[in-house]
Amino acid sequence: MQGDDDIPGIGQYDDFHTIDWQRDIARDRMRHRYIVKKRQDSIWDLIKGAHDAWSGWVCVLLVGVATGMVAGVIDIGASWMTDLKFGICPAAFWFNREQCCWSDTNTTFDSGNCSQWLTWPQVFGDRGDGAGAYIISYLFYIVWALLFAALSASLVRMFAPYACGSGIPEIKTILSGFIIRGYLGKWTLIIKVVGLILSVSSGLSLGKEGPMVHIASCLGNILSYLFPKYGRNEAKKREILSAAAAAGVSVAFGAPIGGVLFSLEEVSYYFPLKTLWRSFFCALIAAFILRSINPFGNEHSVLFFVEYNKPWIFFELIPFVGLGIIGGCIATIFIKANIYWCRYRKYSKLGQYPVTEVLVVTLVTAIIAYPNPYTRMNTSELIYLLFNQCGISNSDPLCDYNRNFTDANSAIEKAAAGPGVHRAIWLLVLALILKLVMTIFTFGIKVPCGLFIPSLALGAIAGRIVGIGVEQLAYHYPKIWLFSGECSTGDDCITPGLYAMVGAAAVLGGVTRMTVSLVVIMFELTGGVRYIVPLMAAAMASKWVGDALGRQGIYDAHIALNGYPFLDSKDEFQHTSLAADVMQPKRNETLSVITQDSMTVDDVETLLKETEHNGYPVVVSKESQYLVGFVLRRDLNLAIANARRTMEGIIGQSVVIFAGAVNPPAGAPPCLHLNRILDMAPITVTDQTPMETVVDMFRKLGLRQTLVTHNGRLLGVITKKDVLRHVKQMDNEDPSSVLFN
Amino acid sequence: MQGDDDIPGIGQYDDFHTIDWQRDIARDRMRHRYIVKKRQDSIWDLIKGAHDAWSGWVCVLLVGVATGMVAGVIDIGASWMTDLKFGICPAAFWFNREQCCWSDTNTTFDSGNCSQWLTWPQVFGDRGDGAGAYIISYLFYIVWALLFAALSASLVRMFAPYACGSGIPEIKTILSGFIIRGYLGKWTLIIKVVGLILSVSSGLSLGKEGPMVHIASCLGNILSYLFPKYGRNEAKKREILSAAAAAGVSVAFGAPIGGVLFSLEEVSYYFPLKTLWRSFFCALIAAFILRSINPFGNEHSVLFFVEYNKPWIFFELIPFVGLGIIGGCIATIFIKANIYWCRYRKYSKLGQYPVTEVLVVTLVTAIIAYPNPYTRMNTSELIYLLFNQCGISNSDPLCDYNRNFTDANSAIEKAAAGPGVHRAIWLLVLALILKLVMTIFTFGIKVPCGLFIPSLALGAIAGRIVGIGVEQLAYHYPKIWLFSGECSTGDDCITPGLYAMVGAAAVLGGVTRMTVSLVVIMFELTGGVRYIVPLMAAAMASKWVGDALGRQGIYDAHIALNGYPFLDSKDEFQHTSLAADVMQPKRNETLSVITQDSMTVDDVETLLKETEHNGYPVVVSKESQYLVGFVLRRDLNLAIANARRTMEGIIGQSVVIFAGAVNPPAGAPPCLHLNRILDMAPITVTDQTPMETVVDMFRKLGLRQTLVTHNGRLLGVITKKDVLRHVKQMDNEDPSSVLFN
Repeated sequence: MQGDDDIPGIGQYDDFHTIDWQRDIARDRMRHRYIVKKRQDSIWDLIKGAHDAWSGWVCVLLVGVATGMVAGVIDIGASWMTDLKFGICPAAFWFNREQCCWSDTNTTFDSGNCSQWLTWPQVFGDRGDGAGAYIISYLFYIVWALLFAALSASLVRMFAPYACGSGIPEIKTILSGFIIRGYLGKWTLIIKVVGLILSVSSGLSLGKEGPMVHIASCLGNILSYLFPKYGRNEAKKREILSAAAAAGVSVAFGAPIGGVLFSLEEVSYYFPLKTLWRSFFCALIAAFILRSINPFGNEHSVLFFVEYNKPWIFFELIPFVGLGIIGGCIATIFIKANIYWCRYRKYSKLGQYPVTEVLVVTLVTAIIAYPNPYTRMNTSELIYLLFNQCGISNSDPLCDYNRNFTDANSAIEKAAAGPGVHRAIWLLVLALILKLVMTIFTFGIKVPCGLFIPSLALGAIAGRIVGIGVEQLAYHYPKIWLFSGECSTGDDCITPGLYAMVGAAAVLGGVTRMTVSLVVIMFELTGGVRYIVPLMAAAMASKWVGDALGRQGIYDAHIALNGYPFLDSKDEFQHTSLAADVMQPKRNETLSVITQDSMTVDDVETLLKETEHNGYPVVVSKESQYLVGFVLRRDLNLAIANARRTMEGIIGQSVVIFAGAVNPPAGAPPCLHLNRILDMAPITVTDQTPMETVVDMFRKLGLRQTLVTHNGRLLGVITKKDVLRHVKQMDNEDPSSVLFN
Repeated sequence: MQGDDDIPGIGQYDDFHTIDWQRDIARDRMRHRYIVKKRQDSIWDLIKGAHDAWSGWVCVLLVGVATGMVAGVIDIGASWMTDLKFGICPAAFWFNREQCCWSDTNTTFDSGNCSQWLTWPQVFGDRGDGAGAYIISYLFYIVWALLFAALSASLVRMFAPYACGSGIPEIKTILSGFIIRGYLGKWTLIIKVVGLILSVSSGLSLGKEGPMVHIASCLGNILSYLFPKYGRNEAKKREILSAAAAAGVSVAFGAPIGGVLFSLEEVSYYFPLKTLWRSFFCALIAAFILRSINPFGNEHSVLFFVEYNKPWIFFELIPFVGLGIIGGCIATIFIKANIYWCRYRKYSKLGQYPVTEVLVVTLVTAIIAYPNPYTRMNTSELIYLLFNQCGISNSDPLCDYNRNFTDANSAIEKAAAGPGVHRAIWLLVLALILKLVMTIFTFGIKVPCGLFIPSLALGAIAGRIVGIGVEQLAYHYPKIWLFSGECSTGDDCITPGLYAMVGAAAVLGGVTRMTVSLVVIMFELTGGVRYIVPLMAAAMASKWVGDALGRQGIYDAHIALNGYPFLDSKDEFQHTSLAADVMQPKRNETLSVITQDSMTVDDVETLLKETEHNGYPVVVSKESQYLVGFVLRRDLNLAIANARRTMEGIIGQSVVIFAGAVNPPAGAPPCLHLNRILDMAPITVTDQTPMETVVDMFRKLGLRQTLVTHNGRLLGVITKKDVLRHVKQMDNEDPSSVLFN
């Protein structure tokens, strides 16, 4: 391993290959020791040493700042273009509705209308509320939606196919040690940002939170090239990417701690504790920058800031757990249907017309969504509305209770639901069905699209409906023993908004199978420890129901669908097979090996031509098969080509020497010494090692392959692909769906 | 490994030994598979299977409930006994001062006095404020303090010597896979609870937060015995202990998320993500139970609830970072002095008189502490006072500003410090010195004592002083460019309480080297994201200063002092040595091995008598040294004893067969087949493996030993002790300080 930097290209990886963590970490330590040693030589080396020591912090600082700024741009852009579907600010067309109304000093935003902002019918002179105005609005809504969606899909198709989707499955795979060139590149970044603004504005049932993780990871990848320590070492680069993923969630929800836990729990694979602190720093900086830009225009740095004035009551745990079960069921329906549809798209003609598909989905969504006010509005606004409790100033039909607001200071009394609430519930049921169906068809189309927000919306709708149900039950039957304690005083004891939040957590938990990070994100959204217990109860119920009905979360399902080589660190290997059952070659095949000092260059080149392995074990002799080391195909190719080019006398008959100092007999061509590319410390296991231990070693040590021996003799090789295929086979799935090595 | 349960005792560990994680996890998976297979047999087995699946959750639920309840008992007990030093409630002597004053309906606690509560001079009829009353109070204070401390020290000395100290270093060691029998037992628990109440009440400079982690871990250990899955498997038990440690911090600070992160970052070693979710559940239940008991008697479940009405200003980052540096220095002084003193205690006669030492320290503390109001009061109260901002109702000298409170609704104006503030600062400087010195001598004495609270207090004092300094600077020189922006409007722009909080975080961070968990705990204490950036800046500065001045945090320093075999997962191994340099035996020594089929029972027993290794490699033959497997000394002893007792014909000349099926020649005694205790899958490395990889494997796979081979031949063994000694040697420390194996 000492000669890594002598021959150009050695130590790099090919596209769609798995990295070797141990090797990369060893390379980094060597580089570090070299810098430490040189530090005494001169002031310049001392500065270089200091720069190297600080580069990790500087890099995550830059990533945090960049992520915060990009998130601000996306928030502002998406908000302006979303409002553009409804109208325009003639005084300054680049203002969104809220800013437009602010510039008009005398109206408040809450009243819902301001004179500065013109809806499209108003622009065309129709200031009434009649059918004509409605049709003009409807048409403009559809046309803008189609325009945005078409633009987004075309940009993605033309410039950066990797920019579509949420990106989280791929980022999970990349962080687990896989190379996908260009997935985190600058074109993907630019197109993802622009496409995301467009697709969010088009009113499709998608969110910008998942893609934000992808965008942050792109920024992390691009900025890591400023620091060779990270840019040129794939294992070290993943430390920056983990931090970037945390920053992405941090800006998406305004939840830095939740972001770090998300990165730790859901996305990251190799997460040394040193990285935890840096990820936290990165997430915090990103949130701080975003808050300074202040796209939400308020004091709070979070997406949905809610405050309830009532604590929850112990018996409410029953409906909360019920909501968890409902959430788990909704999530399972969604995952199964979405995977079914994505598989159909993948293997049918549909996959060849991505832009057409986007346009059709957009058109259907726009036509169905507009008439229902709850689907017409921005999904974030809908969630915010559902999370809120009904106050005096809230004029939405959802808050149409038969109440008597004579004394504004007293506690809100219990009240019967008015006709507005009944109508709102029906509209919400429709919205739930529509959103569920549209999201199934939307997640996976070729525009940037996330599903945190649609999942939250589904859960919030279900939760609000359940919440109103429980509230009315408590109003009409206050004598039931459940309600008799706290609900008999006449005060309002049930907060439907809290149910919406719990439901939202349940569906999101069921879809993504997040646990701690989900609860922490929801807790950071509300800013109070008080509601952690309900959130946790619902998230647990939802996860259990989800796990019982279908094993995988949406991201893992998409990883399996795409055949990425991802070895889940949360799944336990349950079977009794031994290393001998899994290793290649199987019986009756021979293992391709190289001997340490008896093969010629021609022999080696023939072997390289005839086989396609990524690496070859080096043994003492073909007869004894005692293991000496391991050499990579790529290194071997490069080293032989390099030797033929630069060293004199190396011909096909030269003997290749990997270990020991053998002198060639007189008259023979000089030997080719390749001990520098030989890994003398390959990880080995015995053939009797249980596969659970082998899987554990692959996960924890980040191996690419391990060699199998018996009493010191080499028997075979197990690669990561072999392990993944074996896991699939044991789970009765198709092992050939593992595509890459 | 298949025969683990056949011979009693196999699979258990001796006291002061390291566990083998891989083996224990494998045993658990085997047990699990057995249960899953049997589940189809009968309803009873199905119930057993369900019980097994749920037992993890049930166990952490029980641990959470128990921890919350015990924490409530400690809080109530300590608060009552602390007040007992000052006076008594004659109407109900079991009330503390606050409860006593509540029972007296017409007085509020804030006014500081109530008629129901009698101070000791009042009890004896002296209702004045003169010198006589002062002396009586002083004497009672000292007598009670001595009484409590003597009782605490005697209980610890007599019944449970493991109950002293904070316990966190030992728990870190235990969680890293070490056995200390009795350290988490029921006697330790009982004495630690009682002793903790007594020692906290005695007014010593110590806190109850660290020992709470020990208490929670004891509860986790005791309750895990209800579930054989955890109680009988040391590796699985550590999952419960990790959750318990999280619950301990959770109840200590009312910070469940911070508790989980503390457990993850600071205490735990092996922390699968599945455990994260369970630890969070445990921490939350514990916090919820404690909140239901409500020992603090208020709405908030946190120790110090503070709310500031001013945001921090960007330039304040300079003093915050300065506070971080000060905090790092204070922490380093504390660690160095404390370790020096503890080492002196350990190796001198002082160690033989623990109770006397406690009494002397208590006496000195009580005599010096009483005259200064800031050291006389409970340390928690002091911290709360320092964290708070000066409101209108705050009558402490710290808030004696020359202000004009005519309009109570307007913002607080800037004001010059009055004479009370000047006096308070001098008292605080004295308190800082006293607390620092007393804590150095206190941490390590033989009573239960933690140092979270003393560290927080040190930092809060330093921070408040700096805060008042900056505040007065801004008042007197509002024209300096730094202050000219936000501080020129006449409003109060600096909150000294915030500085106290930042300082507290800085010192605690410097002492314990906590990072993310520290920030999250402090954030949960205040309940607002607003101040995370200042806290983080100070914590980072403090950690860097601490790391620059002395490598270890207080817990790691105490682990090193006690010689525990703890392999820190955060330290990177920086050296270039190879496995061949570290392995035993060194050159010129022979390796003790057992052959697979040519040694007799007598040979093996001689080997066991002559050597003291914990295990022996099994090889094909002494000449070839090709490795077959590994057998543990303990298993070998048990198996031979068992065979001699139960099997016929086994005599000293019987050949021991570990692998293969060799038939004894006619007339020879029957063979003893020991293949069931042979581990056929020992972890091996080659002699050329860099030690950094070996250390990584020890950490990540939780190894007890690894075998070193060269070209398939066995060369030697590396045990955890060898690794630890090598690390010490490379760091130029005394390798013989590693005591255990």
